[in-house]
Amino acid sequence: MIASLAARIATHEDQEVLWGVLEPMIRMGGTYVFSLDKTKESMMAYWMGADKVTFAVENEGVVVGTFYLKANQEGLGDHICNAGFVVSRDAEGLGVGRWMGEFAQVEAKSRGFLAMQFNFVIQSNQKAVHLWKSLGFSVIGEIPEAYRHPHLGLVPALIFYKKLTDYPLCYQ
Amino acid sequence: MIASLAARIATHEDQEVLWGVLEPMIRMGGTYVFSLDKTKESMMAYWMGADKVTFAVENEGVVVGTFYLKANQEGLGDHICNAGFVVSRDAEGLGVGRWMGEFAQVEAKSRGFLAMQFNFVIQSNQKAVHLWKSLGFSVIGEIPEAYRHPHLGLVPALIFYKKLTDYPLCYQ
Repeated sequence: MIASLAARIATHEDQEVLWGVLEPMIRMGGTYVFSLDKTKESMMAYWMGADKVTFAVENEGVVVGTFYLKANQEGLGDHICNAGFVVSRDAEGLGVGRWMGEFAQVEAKSRGFLAMQFNFVIQSNQKAVHLWKSLGFSVIGEIPEAYRHPHLGLVPALIFYKKLTDYPLCYQ
Repeated sequence: MIASLAARIATHEDQEVLWGVLEPMIRMGGTYVFSLDKTKESMMAYWMGADKVTFAVENEGVVVGTFYLKANQEGLGDHICNAGFVVSRDAEGLGVGRWMGEFAQVEAKSRGFLAMQFNFVIQSNQKAVHLWKSLGFSVIGEIPEAYRHPHLGLVPALIFYKKLTDYPLCYQ
C-alpha cells in the first residue's frame, strides 16, 4: 500500500504520461472493451473526452493511475455516475485501484451524483470483480457473451451499481 | 395492425419528419432518458449520429416510426447491437412498434450482430416492457432509481437482452 497517493484533475499536458498508463492495458486486453490495436489518438479522445472529468493519481510526483468520472446517462438519468480506472503496470498490487475507487466515490458524491454504475466489467477480470464487490458495489446485471476475450473467447460482462447517498431525493 | 409497413434507411432529408415523430415523445417524457427540453439539433445529432444506422418506417408513404441500430460497445464488444425505437403519436396502438422490433432483429442479424441489448428501458413504460418480453427479450439487469420520471419520481430502468443467433462463434 502506498501512503502518499494524491489525485488531481488531468490536463492536456498529461496526455503522454496517461497514455503510458493506458497503452499496456489496452494492448493486453481483458479489462476494457477496446480493440487491442486502438490508437493513442482514439483512446485519449475517449479517456479525456469533454463528457468526462479525468484524474491523474500520483505517488511522490509519479503518475501511478488514472480514472474518469462522467454521467452514465444524459438528461433525466444524469444523477448516476460512471467511471473508469486504470492502474499503471508498475504500480499493480499496491492498492492504487482501491484508493482510486474510494476517492472516486467521494468525488462523485461531492459533485452531486446519487449512485455509481459500471456498465461493462469483464467477468474474467477477477481483480476488478473482487475490488468492486469489496467496496460495496452490487452486481445488478450480467450480459452474456459480451466480450470477445483475446484468450478465453466470449465471456460475460457484469454491471455494478452502488448508491452513494441516503439523502432524501426530491428530483422532479 | 398496418399491413403495408416498409423500412428504409433515413437520410438528412428526413430530419424534419423524424423530428416530428421524436419531439412529442421527448416533450412528454417517460420513454427515453432525454431532458424534456432537449433541442431538435441535439436530438437529431444523437438519433442520426455517425455511430448509428437510422431507419424511417412508412405506411403508404407516411412516416409512422423510426428506429436506429448501432453497436452497443466498441472494439471487442461490438457484436452486440443496441437499438432505439419511436412510434409516431398518430400511429400508436397499430403494431408499428412490434413490426419495428421484429424488423430490427432481422436487420441486426444480417449485419452480423450476435445479440441485441437495450440499456435503459424505463420500468414504468409498461408498453415497452411488455413488447420486448413478448418478442423474446430477457431482463438481464435492473438499475435502481435510474430515471427521474416527470410524474413518478425516481423509477428503475431495465436492461433487456436477446441472443439473435445460435451459430457457433469463432471470434478471437
